[in-house]
Amino acid sequence: MTIMKKNSASTIVSPIQDFLEELYRKCVAEDSGQVATYIPELAKANPDWFGICVVTANGAVYEVGETQQEFTIQSISKPFVYGLALEDNGRAATLERVGVEPTGDAFNSISLDPGTGRPRNPMINAGAIATAGLIAGKTPASRFKRVLETFSLYAGRELGLDETVYRSESETGHRNRAIGYMLRNFDKLTGDPMPTTEIYFKQCSISVNCRDLGVMAATLANGGINPITGKQALRGEYVESVLSVMGTCGMYDYSGEWLYNVGIPAKSGVAGGVLAVLPGQVGIGVFSPKLDAHGNSVRGIRVCQELSRHLDLHLYNRPVAGRSTILNKFTAAEFNSNHVRTKEEGDDLRELGKAVQVYQVQGHLAFATTEPLVRDVLGGNEEVQFVLLDLKRVLSLNESAGHLMHALLVKLRAQHKAVLFTHCDHLPLLRRLMKKKLGDTFAEAYVTYPNNDLALEWCESCLLEHTRHARSANYKAKPSEYHLFVGFSAEELKVVQPLLQTRAFKVGQTIIKAGDAAREVFFLARGHVSVFLPGEDGHRLARFSPGMSFGEMAFLDGAPRSANIVADTDVECDQLALKDFEWLGENHPAIKIKMLEKLCLDLTTKLRKANRELSVFE
Amino acid sequence: MTIMKKNSASTIVSPIQDFLEELYRKCVAEDSGQVATYIPELAKANPDWFGICVVTANGAVYEVGETQQEFTIQSISKPFVYGLALEDNGRAATLERVGVEPTGDAFNSISLDPGTGRPRNPMINAGAIATAGLIAGKTPASRFKRVLETFSLYAGRELGLDETVYRSESETGHRNRAIGYMLRNFDKLTGDPMPTTEIYFKQCSISVNCRDLGVMAATLANGGINPITGKQALRGEYVESVLSVMGTCGMYDYSGEWLYNVGIPAKSGVAGGVLAVLPGQVGIGVFSPKLDAHGNSVRGIRVCQELSRHLDLHLYNRPVAGRSTILNKFTAAEFNSNHVRTKEEGDDLRELGKAVQVYQVQGHLAFATTEPLVRDVLGGNEEVQFVLLDLKRVLSLNESAGHLMHALLVKLRAQHKAVLFTHCDHLPLLRRLMKKKLGDTFAEAYVTYPNNDLALEWCESCLLEHTRHARSANYKAKPSEYHLFVGFSAEELKVVQPLLQTRAFKVGQTIIKAGDAAREVFFLARGHVSVFLPGEDGHRLARFSPGMSFGEMAFLDGAPRSANIVADTDVECDQLALKDFEWLGENHPAIKIKMLEKLCLDLTTKLRKANRELSVFE
Repeated sequence: MTIMKKNSASTIVSPIQDFLEELYRKCVAEDSGQVATYIPELAKANPDWFGICVVTANGAVYEVGETQQEFTIQSISKPFVYGLALEDNGRAATLERVGVEPTGDAFNSISLDPGTGRPRNPMINAGAIATAGLIAGKTPASRFKRVLETFSLYAGRELGLDETVYRSESETGHRNRAIGYMLRNFDKLTGDPMPTTEIYFKQCSISVNCRDLGVMAATLANGGINPITGKQALRGEYVESVLSVMGTCGMYDYSGEWLYNVGIPAKSGVAGGVLAVLPGQVGIGVFSPKLDAHGNSVRGIRVCQELSRHLDLHLYNRPVAGRSTILNKFTAAEFNSNHVRTKEEGDDLRELGKAVQVYQVQGHLAFATTEPLVRDVLGGNEEVQFVLLDLKRVLSLNESAGHLMHALLVKLRAQHKAVLFTHCDHLPLLRRLMKKKLGDTFAEAYVTYPNNDLALEWCESCLLEHTRHARSANYKAKPSEYHLFVGFSAEELKVVQPLLQTRAFKVGQTIIKAGDAAREVFFLARGHVSVFLPGEDGHRLARFSPGMSFGEMAFLDGAPRSANIVADTDVECDQLALKDFEWLGENHPAIKIKMLEKLCLDLTTKLRKANRELSVFE
Repeated sequence: MTIMKKNSASTIVSPIQDFLEELYRKCVAEDSGQVATYIPELAKANPDWFGICVVTANGAVYEVGETQQEFTIQSISKPFVYGLALEDNGRAATLERVGVEPTGDAFNSISLDPGTGRPRNPMINAGAIATAGLIAGKTPASRFKRVLETFSLYAGRELGLDETVYRSESETGHRNRAIGYMLRNFDKLTGDPMPTTEIYFKQCSISVNCRDLGVMAATLANGGINPITGKQALRGEYVESVLSVMGTCGMYDYSGEWLYNVGIPAKSGVAGGVLAVLPGQVGIGVFSPKLDAHGNSVRGIRVCQELSRHLDLHLYNRPVAGRSTILNKFTAAEFNSNHVRTKEEGDDLRELGKAVQVYQVQGHLAFATTEPLVRDVLGGNEEVQFVLLDLKRVLSLNESAGHLMHALLVKLRAQHKAVLFTHCDHLPLLRRLMKKKLGDTFAEAYVTYPNNDLALEWCESCLLEHTRHARSANYKAKPSEYHLFVGFSAEELKVVQPLLQTRAFKVGQTIIKAGDAAREVFFLARGHVSVFLPGEDGHRLARFSPGMSFGEMAFLDGAPRSANIVADTDVECDQLALKDFEWLGENHPAIKIKMLEKLCLDLTTKLRKANRELSVFE
């Protein structure tokens, strides 16, 4: 017996790998059952072959045993061909030919509906042959080619036909040919039924290994997209239908008990394969040729039972959604934009900021996860005027969540509340739905910002606009209003003013460049400047308004400038040179001390703000 | 027609409420079907009655129409009694009496297994009567009392029996009595079968309203706990079994198609009720008495179809789990404890800190969500020596996640890596599993901290212990080493030293008390002090080591002290009084300027650290 250790690149073997190896050792002892013998090729299988492969919907692969041993897919082909039939014909036309009701009958039962001749479901042979008849293509060869290509997309590698098994199936498949003619009789197959039964024999004879089954299962768990190659094998809308028939009919007359005990939609094949899919979570492939009386792999069933029990995989044993939708919730009284405000504005915002409610939303937005957000927003403080929805950590958004978001937006706008969405570029469906539903009002109503900083700044500016400290956009601060000079006597101002040198910058002009030597501090008289981290799309660290100073840090410690400072508008500044600051220390030390004390206090205020903001995330 | 608007306390009607009202208007037009007439009481129902109630697994209730109109629960009682039977007898004994295989037969089929006489499933009448026979109790009256009490727990209010319907059921229930005797014949009922059939008639005659159905469904969606009352109606381990039989057999011979189209386990009753459960998400109750040929409420089916389609509720249409397990990941090179380090230590940590890997973990930890965490930790940098798992935002943890956590811990310890868990008090299962599996090594191996700050500090201290800047615990800083005096000349030191007044504090003693006036700044010579926010369990803002100063802020701005500072060890300090600092400004301004410049630089360093840390969360 060889146990293959995968993930060997990592220095430590995953406990999941350990668990699978232990499970392998436990189940390899299970020795009951019989290898299928209805065709000689299957009877040649080594009864000891045994492989287990678990693949997460994120594409992590864990495998143990003979996972590379090839075998024919047999009935496990049925759900995949059913998916292709749905893509080719849609749900309604497919349902006309094949039902979806479990029969409680064995795998080889013909189970046609007495009245219509419609096979009860696509997992029994009659239903599978009717399904094969639905595959589009000009010739039987091109129809089968499409089946093989689709299976290869699921497996993430080029699969092939086992010719020997196919010939053997074809030579002995008289019962299935009878079914084919029976279906033809009821018009559930059109034209000559024989090419379709051959396609059926071929689809059953596609050669796969245990790892393929795991990956194919994971592709269904991942909404039809192979999580390793990223390629789509089945349109997402049909995944639920394929899993539905697996869930109710996949294990023949053992399906009810299977769902009850194991709780994972599954399909078995007579060559010994079992494939099981827990949607959104994991795909499982097991291979061991000895079968029980239902025609299911004995070890395959055992492995799935153990996996379900030990990994708590039962479909109906799910934690409650929605409790984590709101990651953080805060107001602009607690957390502000990087626009550095005057003390008066800061004081105003500590009260006014309560009108800005920020939600950091996270996870997968569906009905049950979006509902708590909608409820919280609508149940919130009536004084809220701005609702900022930060969608950065939203992983996905489905249609129903999109509709709720739209309805929420409309409701809030009717109450004259503004809604701002940030970090939503990765959710094109939201934009599409909003565009469709908002129509002419889209541009005005669907307000988005690339980040919270800019969105918060806009809200703050709206709030501050009508306060008594509001200044016109063109406000020019006098030197006596410069922050570092506040409280200076007329004599003190007379000392510093001659040291200041006036400079003007055009909008967009760089005032300070990261890396440059620092030889002056700037006092902003008119306009606004922003501080950006160096780099292509540098993060905005701060924005300053008239009266504030900037560039004092590098100026003090003599280090090169650490950030870029850019004029947001046309700007007028006064600058104070390092040598003049030193001259002040020697000739007017009390003035320099006053400036430094003011600077300490400013820094303390900023540090307290940063610490307060950090506590929002603790 | 009256449409009731709930949630009217809120100023804005929820869009979910709007949606339900629109759905109501749409489906009320659906007028086909027949009111059940097999007993006269049911025939008296108003065919126009119509109610819809959607309750989330978190307990939010949305309802429209006649949701208060009472009717008898009928067959919807079956899954709830089945749950009680499982609690009374366990899975194995229950399965001996009743199977779980769908029949594909109509609701009133007897469907006993030909060999054993075992009813095929508990949703058909024969299975339900066998299930009623499994309810424990000394007398038929006490057995039914338990049924009624259990149903009341599900509904969150005291339910009662509709005596008239019960008498009518009992008078006409000959077919069910025949089934009772048939079951007795096969020993699937013991003793006299007649009291059990009476219990069955009574369970079907329990009076509920549409809102009750919604809440009962939500209780199953919420793992057996009524989300409104918080009371347990069914042990969590049996929820999956109840939902499994609903999923495969709940809608009679329409079950396969139901699961395929609607994808929500459901149960209907002949009085017109439909109850549907999407595990972990929502419960649905619908009431409308007109039935289709399968015996299911016409509008009930229509409403569930519409809800499933518009709210994307199909069981098999699930987003991929695990992509949001790791909320944040950073090292102690990026984010440190609040223990303020010396510049040398800070420099060392910017390199050494890479050995501390912090994971902020979130959401529900199950196999598929824990696997990415395990993979990331094990695939991480080999130089990592400390793995800190912050579980603050973990909402739940199941057994399989607990086992993985334990295995991860053991693996990492074998590699001489330390694992620290923080914020894990709300996950008692984790502690229990660790205790059980770690045995004697539990106390040593399962290291927990109440918060990240203390855990990070411990890791940092381990890392710094053997660096060349390491100091003994009893290290005493000389004034020339005081941070604010670094770079002072001997003459300058000679000026300030006489101004310092030595003070000693015992471990635990409060050095600075929030609210007090600030009259001095402290220089720490020996020992450690911590800064706490005022209040009972005040958050630790900082910890200082010898050489650092504290209390300078309030000292500068003249405001009262804003935090408490407490001696962590026996402490020796030097203090400088405000008046002496002022004296320095007048008599030795160059010294005061030096100190203020140093202070500015310190503050700048702290501010840059805080901004860097804030960016970790952006």
